[in-house]
Amino acid sequence: MITPDEALELVVRAAAPLAAQRVALDDACGLVLAEDILADRDYPPFPRSMMDGFAVRLADAGTTVPVVGEVPAGSVWEGQVVAGQCVEILTGAPCPRGAEAVVPKEHVARRENFVDLPNPIKPGQNIAPQGSDCRRAERVLAAGQVVTSMAIAAIASFGRASIQARPRPTLGVITTGEELAGPGGPLRPGQIRNSNGPMLAAMARDQGLSAPRHWHVADRLEATVQALEEAANTNIVVLSGGVSVGTYDFVPQALARIGAETVFHGVKQKPARPILLARQGPRLFFGLPGNPLSCHFGFHRYVAPAIRKMSGLAAARRVFQGELALAIESKGGRVRYVPGRAEVSQRSAGGWRVEVLPEASSADIFQGCRANCYVELPAVAHVYRAGEAIGFTWLGREPWW
Amino acid sequence: MITPDEALELVVRAAAPLAAQRVALDDACGLVLAEDILADRDYPPFPRSMMDGFAVRLADAGTTVPVVGEVPAGSVWEGQVVAGQCVEILTGAPCPRGAEAVVPKEHVARRENFVDLPNPIKPGQNIAPQGSDCRRAERVLAAGQVVTSMAIAAIASFGRASIQARPRPTLGVITTGEELAGPGGPLRPGQIRNSNGPMLAAMARDQGLSAPRHWHVADRLEATVQALEEAANTNIVVLSGGVSVGTYDFVPQALARIGAETVFHGVKQKPARPILLARQGPRLFFGLPGNPLSCHFGFHRYVAPAIRKMSGLAAARRVFQGELALAIESKGGRVRYVPGRAEVSQRSAGGWRVEVLPEASSADIFQGCRANCYVELPAVAHVYRAGEAIGFTWLGREPWW
Repeated sequence: MITPDEALELVVRAAAPLAAQRVALDDACGLVLAEDILADRDYPPFPRSMMDGFAVRLADAGTTVPVVGEVPAGSVWEGQVVAGQCVEILTGAPCPRGAEAVVPKEHVARRENFVDLPNPIKPGQNIAPQGSDCRRAERVLAAGQVVTSMAIAAIASFGRASIQARPRPTLGVITTGEELAGPGGPLRPGQIRNSNGPMLAAMARDQGLSAPRHWHVADRLEATVQALEEAANTNIVVLSGGVSVGTYDFVPQALARIGAETVFHGVKQKPARPILLARQGPRLFFGLPGNPLSCHFGFHRYVAPAIRKMSGLAAARRVFQGELALAIESKGGRVRYVPGRAEVSQRSAGGWRVEVLPEASSADIFQGCRANCYVELPAVAHVYRAGEAIGFTWLGREPWW
Repeated sequence: MITPDEALELVVRAAAPLAAQRVALDDACGLVLAEDILADRDYPPFPRSMMDGFAVRLADAGTTVPVVGEVPAGSVWEGQVVAGQCVEILTGAPCPRGAEAVVPKEHVARRENFVDLPNPIKPGQNIAPQGSDCRRAERVLAAGQVVTSMAIAAIASFGRASIQARPRPTLGVITTGEELAGPGGPLRPGQIRNSNGPMLAAMARDQGLSAPRHWHVADRLEATVQALEEAANTNIVVLSGGVSVGTYDFVPQALARIGAETVFHGVKQKPARPILLARQGPRLFFGLPGNPLSCHFGFHRYVAPAIRKMSGLAAARRVFQGELALAIESKGGRVRYVPGRAEVSQRSAGGWRVEVLPEASSADIFQGCRANCYVELPAVAHVYRAGEAIGFTWLGREPWW
């Protein structure tokens, strides 16, 4: 059976970045650019006043001059500033020809249409020269960069309302299991509620995806095949349950039936040992165990990296180092992943203190409700002391709350 | 003039957590709970088989017994397991009365309707006792906790399709400025594109808010007042531009006109010195400078904490410590905030290496496109050496890419 790292490597190799699309700028924050973004002109596009004040000639410092015009932002004063005159100018407005500095209005005394200018006046003061922030055709962003909110501002400056970017993948969720009921209404004896459907939808949205379409099917081959066929226009299909080798475990069979090729089935890890990856062209199918904790972990460690790779991002999560809050024993055998909570350490600057949340079984998602990370315990038997270094990966996208 | 920390304190005091609402579970991930969540019954709700196998009596270890029934998941076998018999059982199914252990099917030899049981059989093996994960009425989540994806699974287990949670605030954006044009179409001389509108919308969505409604108004009092009146049903209004003391700076006047009370106007910081906070009952109004970088920083440091506090979260961002990648000089006078990029340090485990991105002016959002944080340079003059410790705050919600 392959190791967790070998499995992740196979996931990353199987997932291909999606083809670029034209995306409205309003929907582009967080996406990966698929084009270089060049400045459409110089910025500022003209010598720009940085203050409300008066555009003047340097030689007039210390004298009294008449105000011969006014330039609000968004306007142009077509005349020229000559010696012995000045022009009132607003922040953001283009400095008229001839202007050598802008004197802030707080620094002058104004009497009707005349102003007393200070002395000295520094050349170019309060004027941002044309092109001083950015030159026309300068590459401000490169293909492959993530579009940040500041990048949105830069792109909007250039008059663009859309860009070429890689979309996020679409995801379909198929939960299986005769014993699972939806919310509300009575339960038959032996039934439990379907928790993997809502959980997987939340995990997908946490990764920036649209709400996935959800099918629930009983443990029957035909129903599973039909749901797979209906999910044919999604980039990734996540199935929960039915992935072991039991009488009612129809997921591997159903995937074979639609012609998907198995990449791996089974990983030497706890939880989620029977996890399955299949592919059909560029489409990926993850068969996750039905136990909620196994299902959650399977999405975290294998589905999320596939989503990231398809989105054009670096696939793998970074493994952070923290110090254990309490001692914990690892029995070895399989790599173990346990939900944890990492908080900023009070002891070491920039360090993390990691609490391992106990779980009773691989169905137990109750203890893990506070989790913001998974802690990785290597396959060797080891008794970790409190304060010992431990690796962890962040859940979702909001570790700082 | 107040300091940045005093201003933040005033923001946090002015922002009140929004009233709880009923929220569909599908939309609840990341929100703050406004009720305790109690288990509706024991979990597992019955002694649950953890394997596909045979429910047996311990005394039958090492013997051959007939299979007298089958329990698929979601069903109940009404009989009782007695000595000299066993019942086939599937993962997740309730163990019948009398069953003392489940023997995995891999551990038995089956011949037609008889199985050879191994010896010994451990008491209770592969049976999760009723209530072993969680007891009926146990408090699994408390009001005030963030709803994580694992919490979604727990709540869905209890048959709930909605919860009481604090919604995120709604936000209106009013950009002002005669010189600003929308995307597409020709520009008049002296005009530039409106970049603050798209940027503020992206920053709001980055904080988990719905796309804000956006008004653009010319530098006229009446137009500004009208936009404020149209934005009356939003929790927060962010205005950009028009917040200084110039002839065309109508934002303070317009806020006074609708009866909003100024909390502060002006903060001893660079950029965004003329920033304004006003309030009207529980509604907040932020007047941010029109320069894109000032506007971006104003949202980051003051609007985002207000959003978080209204959402029921801890308001202030955590200040992280990193080491400077390159030397930088701070002239002192005002606290300065510069866009930066923090990356995991190669030198110190768990540490951050912070690159300060140079900016040409407070209109310059081009250098900052790669930023994932703001670096804070205190008000005292100081030459920072490379490697020296420096505080920074993360932008947005995705610092790990």
